[in-house]
Amino acid sequence: MVSEKVLLSGHIIDSLILPKVLDEITDLGGTFAIEEIHVGRTRRDTSRACIEVSATSRDRLERILERIKRQGAVSVEPGEVKLVRAPRDGVLPEGFYSSTNLQTDVQFKGRWIRVRNPEMDCAVVVDTKARRAATVPMSDVRKGDRVVVGEQGVRVLPEKRAEETDEFRFMRSRTSSEKPKEIMIHEIAAQMKSAKRRGGKILVVGGPAIVHTGAGRYLERLIRKGFVDVLFAGNALAVHDVEYALFETSLGIYLDRGQSAEGGHGHHVRAINAIRAAGGLRRAVSKGILKKGVMYTCVREKVPFVLAGSIRDDGPLPEVITDAIEAQRAMRRYLKGVRFALMVATTLHSIAVGNLLPASVRTVCVDINPSVVTKLIDRGSFQAAGLVTDAELFLRELSQTLTGS
Amino acid sequence: MVSEKVLLSGHIIDSLILPKVLDEITDLGGTFAIEEIHVGRTRRDTSRACIEVSATSRDRLERILERIKRQGAVSVEPGEVKLVRAPRDGVLPEGFYSSTNLQTDVQFKGRWIRVRNPEMDCAVVVDTKARRAATVPMSDVRKGDRVVVGEQGVRVLPEKRAEETDEFRFMRSRTSSEKPKEIMIHEIAAQMKSAKRRGGKILVVGGPAIVHTGAGRYLERLIRKGFVDVLFAGNALAVHDVEYALFETSLGIYLDRGQSAEGGHGHHVRAINAIRAAGGLRRAVSKGILKKGVMYTCVREKVPFVLAGSIRDDGPLPEVITDAIEAQRAMRRYLKGVRFALMVATTLHSIAVGNLLPASVRTVCVDINPSVVTKLIDRGSFQAAGLVTDAELFLRELSQTLTGS
Amino acid sequence: MVSEKVLLSGHIIDSLILPKVLDEITDLGGTFAIEEIHVGRTRRDTSRACIEVSATSRDRLERILERIKRQGAVSVEPGEVKLVRAPRDGVLPEGFYSSTNLQTDVQFKGRWIRVRNPEMDCAVVVDTKARRAATVPMSDVRKGDRVVVGEQGVRVLPEKRAEETDEFRFMRSRTSSEKPKEIMIHEIAAQMKSAKRRGGKILVVGGPAIVHTGAGRYLERLIRKGFVDVLFAGNALAVHDVEYALFETSLGIYLDRGQSAEGGHGHHVRAINAIRAAGGLRRAVSKGILKKGVMYTCVREKVPFVLAGSIRDDGPLPEVITDAIEAQRAMRRYLKGVRFALMVATTLHSIAVGNLLPASVRTVCVDINPSVVTKLIDRGSFQAAGLVTDAELFLRELSQTLTGS
Amino acid sequence: MVSEKVLLSGHIIDSLILPKVLDEITDLGGTFAIEEIHVGRTRRDTSRACIEVSATSRDRLERILERIKRQGAVSVEPGEVKLVRAPRDGVLPEGFYSSTNLQTDVQFKGRWIRVRNPEMDCAVVVDTKARRAATVPMSDVRKGDRVVVGEQGVRVLPEKRAEETDEFRFMRSRTSSEKPKEIMIHEIAAQMKSAKRRGGKILVVGGPAIVHTGAGRYLERLIRKGFVDVLFAGNALAVHDVEYALFETSLGIYLDRGQSAEGGHGHHVRAINAIRAAGGLRRAVSKGILKKGVMYTCVREKVPFVLAGSIRDDGPLPEVITDAIEAQRAMRRYLKGVRFALMVATTLHSIAVGNLLPASVRTVCVDINPSVVTKLIDRGSFQAAGLVTDAELFLRELSQTLTGS
Repeated sequence: MVSEKVLLSGHIIDSLILPKVLDEITDLGGTFAIEEIHVGRTRRDTSRACIEVSATSRDRLERILERIKRQGAVSVEPGEVKLVRAPRDGVLPEGFYSSTNLQTDVQFKGRWIRVRNPEMDCAVVVDTKARRAATVPMSDVRKGDRVVVGEQGVRVLPEKRAEETDEFRFMRSRTSSEKPKEIMIHEIAAQMKSAKRRGGKILVVGGPAIVHTGAGRYLERLIRKGFVDVLFAGNALAVHDVEYALFETSLGIYLDRGQSAEGGHGHHVRAINAIRAAGGLRRAVSKGILKKGVMYTCVREKVPFVLAGSIRDDGPLPEVITDAIEAQRAMRRYLKGVRFALMVATTLHSIAVGNLLPASVRTVCVDINPSVVTKLIDRGSFQAAGLVTDAELFLRELSQTLTGS
Repeated sequence: MVSEKVLLSGHIIDSLILPKVLDEITDLGGTFAIEEIHVGRTRRDTSRACIEVSATSRDRLERILERIKRQGAVSVEPGEVKLVRAPRDGVLPEGFYSSTNLQTDVQFKGRWIRVRNPEMDCAVVVDTKARRAATVPMSDVRKGDRVVVGEQGVRVLPEKRAEETDEFRFMRSRTSSEKPKEIMIHEIAAQMKSAKRRGGKILVVGGPAIVHTGAGRYLERLIRKGFVDVLFAGNALAVHDVEYALFETSLGIYLDRGQSAEGGHGHHVRAINAIRAAGGLRRAVSKGILKKGVMYTCVREKVPFVLAGSIRDDGPLPEVITDAIEAQRAMRRYLKGVRFALMVATTLHSIAVGNLLPASVRTVCVDINPSVVTKLIDRGSFQAAGLVTDAELFLRELSQTLTGS
Repeated sequence: MVSEKVLLSGHIIDSLILPKVLDEITDLGGTFAIEEIHVGRTRRDTSRACIEVSATSRDRLERILERIKRQGAVSVEPGEVKLVRAPRDGVLPEGFYSSTNLQTDVQFKGRWIRVRNPEMDCAVVVDTKARRAATVPMSDVRKGDRVVVGEQGVRVLPEKRAEETDEFRFMRSRTSSEKPKEIMIHEIAAQMKSAKRRGGKILVVGGPAIVHTGAGRYLERLIRKGFVDVLFAGNALAVHDVEYALFETSLGIYLDRGQSAEGGHGHHVRAINAIRAAGGLRRAVSKGILKKGVMYTCVREKVPFVLAGSIRDDGPLPEVITDAIEAQRAMRRYLKGVRFALMVATTLHSIAVGNLLPASVRTVCVDINPSVVTKLIDRGSFQAAGLVTDAELFLRELSQTLTGS
Repeated sequence: MVSEKVLLSGHIIDSLILPKVLDEITDLGGTFAIEEIHVGRTRRDTSRACIEVSATSRDRLERILERIKRQGAVSVEPGEVKLVRAPRDGVLPEGFYSSTNLQTDVQFKGRWIRVRNPEMDCAVVVDTKARRAATVPMSDVRKGDRVVVGEQGVRVLPEKRAEETDEFRFMRSRTSSEKPKEIMIHEIAAQMKSAKRRGGKILVVGGPAIVHTGAGRYLERLIRKGFVDVLFAGNALAVHDVEYALFETSLGIYLDRGQSAEGGHGHHVRAINAIRAAGGLRRAVSKGILKKGVMYTCVREKVPFVLAGSIRDDGPLPEVITDAIEAQRAMRRYLKGVRFALMVATTLHSIAVGNLLPASVRTVCVDINPSVVTKLIDRGSFQAAGLVTDAELFLRELSQTLTGS
């Protein structure tokens, strides 16, 4: 039987951290003894517990500690972080520390260093000269990088739930279409304004149904009014948007008389071809070929966008980044400074972006399919909330709330 | 090998009736020979086909004829309707004709008589003295009633698809959340206005989520402005509505700060008890206990309602009809004159009412769950369309379109 | 500012009760101070906390106490239960205590009396002579019954999570179709066997899709092998089952060649009529008309069933209880002794039965639609678990595991 | 008013082609006159119609002809195909013909040439020397390629529905979880055997839930018994499979005691790293690192696989093709000779592969979420059928049917 003492502190009862930690210890076959506990008298006060964790083998104990440290448990004697060099490009040393999306520190030469760009499932690489640490995705690790190995000297700082508004807590509470959407849409609008006020950026991640359903115009308004600082989407959203912009009549008929979506059958490939012939979306705008729509508005308003490719794509449009790893890198570059992320009607992109975001970014995922929302929330951070509703009517309402039209 | 000749006429190609009929013949093990076909030159022209249906046994042939006559096939020599007396109350004679929800005639003493109150899965009873025919549900048949037996002398008149607007056809086309809702909501508003203009009544069938999500106010507006002639719901919608009306503060908090639905835990039973103590919803209104909400508005505006009980109910409220067969009878009474039925966020009531409605009533079913919408449409008539969207945002938009607020 | 002290004890940290209680206090606008806390050193040890709850008004404090007592908080000085007579049949006194589905005691004349038949949202009526207490549904309360009013003298005993197997905890963890079903089906089989071994009864609640999909035969096997002590269903399950039993060929074709469900169109009303003519299911069995199927097997094996009516029903069959309140009463009668409840492919009946069940009955809800499962679990007790899977393949696997075929 | 005559022949009534064509003409604002119609007397006989299509402008007429030719309408005087050279790599000439996934011929120098590799939304390129034609995806078109422009000289041959078994028609009929799965699984097994017997290949497209739910072992059996000729999947399926293979105990615990999926948190990145360190899946097998699982079985049985990357991926594994367009090319290479495609529990890959497949490949899509199935079927060909069921239990049953274990 081996054991180790850890400390838990903060809002550990209120935010369910203490029960979760005790659960995980026994789930993984360990036992615990609470040596000492101090519970805050009121909600504002923090609590603190000292827990002795025991297991039948060192291995099992390590696994338990790995898990509970992700919840914020800190070794009583954290020690120095252990660094091992990456053996090859894109390959990590055995036993590497796999990061969370929470704020994390490593103890290096007796001082705690903050790890930059918190992101799930990455390596933590320490620049020993500059005394800096950062997450690095496996495929970007270079031979010789000093990679953190094991849990020693690593400290995770869980997000505080206490700061949330009641409305946001409510949104996060349970994924259901039976909650009043109006108050949630107002809360989202309030959070978007607040993010802007504090100098933060707003990221919108959108799926093609936004354009299909005629809600592109609401997204355009949000872009024009400065509520979108960067847009992530796939080829399909851009293609449908361009198709609408180029084939007015056919789609005019479609949207006015409600013709079946098959109506524009050939159009989407023609739209792609037209943009390819022009040399891309930006050039199609400057040449006067593309004169309206979401992509046009992004180009005119100088709102950057990342179009990530997928195997479902036709064409694709020239701006689409067809390599998945390159697309991830491009998205990471634009995540700096993002404080609020709104994901609308896209499973693939929502989950992909969710994987890249630090837990500190308020994230709202909107979809009519509850299983999409649940999937994201389940992987997501403390800060993610879901809204099961109609993307078109949602954007209409959000645009009215934020822009008055 | 036995065979019989049938005629099909009308928009039988355009509305897929001919292919369906040929399909059913072979599906049921028969064969066909098209003796003669005259296809209309243009869309407005009707077509006409004479088909010889053959099968290996009289039984099989009868079964095939039963099925294809539901699509409008008419025997070349229809003959007189056969009547057999019901052996006991609530029991039909062997081989009774089971009705469709389409317009139907029976040939009695050489004349075609229209069958009143088209409704699925009923018996057709002929009053031989008055020379009248009507559908009668099995449980309402009385001993000695003259019930139509077999297919002979029965003629079904399929609905004409040609009269539909393009928008309504589009709504009916495919059940998907990815269709533009705005144009569909405007089409629903146009159909509601048109039904009123032509002297028809509008039926709303609603589920409790309307109140849960705060959309009760939009339904109230529709009632006040005369767009609801009768409301069908269950105990739950009324209870949640009363709870909101009576416990302002608790639900005020709930809707403003977004507290979890558990918040009002005890309230719904207290609300039921308060209405039971008052002697019912109508008396609670006249006593000044119930002062707002959907049910209050119905009572004040003299809009009749049927609250049908279910085994899920708490209480229930005194106006709830707890017997399912009695509730069906009450609903049937109010269906006279209904030209448009709007079903929002309720599976049980939508399907129950769908079973009672003649195919000639334009029916729109709105739910965020596509499987609910599909279920109704699949059983439903030609005239049913589905909208996969958020009930709250749908009612908000519909109320704005129809009432300007 | 008013305040009151409460005690919480048991596995209050491990089972999340303490954090939930603290959450609810602040959610409802109160504040708390933890006067004393003793946390069990290991998982087996219980913990204990003394909490002072404060609020700005007596009313608010009462509401908070009402809520947290449902989680097991006990007043330091519980006092005597307060009883007020019911003013009329079916009407409760103002301020009545609304029950939970957890084990509950009331303090009467200085002694704790156990409340019989725990059921949600009922009144608690005390027989002062016999010194007995029981839950009574609102509609069954008689004028003059002594009804518990307020929270005083009431104590709720939360279920212990600690006794669960890991497999059952896993089943309860998260509603997803992506969990391994095989281990869950084996766990269900184990729980069913264990319930039988301990002399408990097994309740099955089933929807018509069981028969539609051809899984009726697996349910029959479970009935024959003694794994079903009582069956709750609606008219539809029984009708489809009888239709299959009576119209072999037509449904033989249907199930062998896979004809569309419309195939049996007329058959279901003919099946109903045949059973009505026979005088009911039991008489149809004794007369040799009904010779196979789920209902036949129930009759032959003397397994009681309750068929509850709904407004969707055709017919209905004579055994169907069309009055919802009567149907609830019939179901309550059969719940005595039930230790395990299996709900398959029915939303309406699952939720209705879930409302009637004490929290101590292990409940498993199986449906392919995750929203049905979530709905039940959300209202459900601690003891409910959900399985998002195919009802047909589930029953096949369960029957193979339990009966070897 | 301009007009043109077209011929329609084949099973045009039975397979709904005639009504669809008439519908599309009027939908797109044209009118029609049926000049002549000959309807087959029996099901086996083909029918034939000559239709004059008219429209107010040449443009509109062209659009109508484009659409109805996709249904098999053939110009009375088809003329020679028009060829225009591609202006640049990856850019098509204005007015290019956008292909269907149906068998297509082009008339070149007075002879009909079959277009190879039918695939949706591609260009048709004619090699004028070799007198060959083939579909070419836009991104693979090279400057100077002779590309078909307009509809002239193009003839589409619709699939014949008549050859289907009743069971397959039933599977295709309506997407519902309420159909008997057992007969559908047997039909799938029969089709897989028949495809093999006729020398065709079977393609399986799978999502990670196959491994999550423990159904990997059934897929392995199918591979070992020769029922899988090529496997398409993403990084996630392979990663979860490797994680299971490498971390036996942790996942042994997971699958036996039912620990939450978070259990293996760190493991999946460690699994990826281990395979990267080994130099890929194939080398991990040959080095004895990877000893079981789906990917191992593919390598051992020499079953080729394509792992297509997505922006959701961690790692990824070395064999993953991260560029979407490259991945499409790799998949196209393996589609040659495929006669049956089984898609299980993956939206992204199912739709992507559906886009690449000719309509002649029998395709079955299995998912527990009906909207995934509907999405594929809606885009899919005549030959696609959907099964709404549990992937794990489906594979178990299919494996038992095909391999006896």
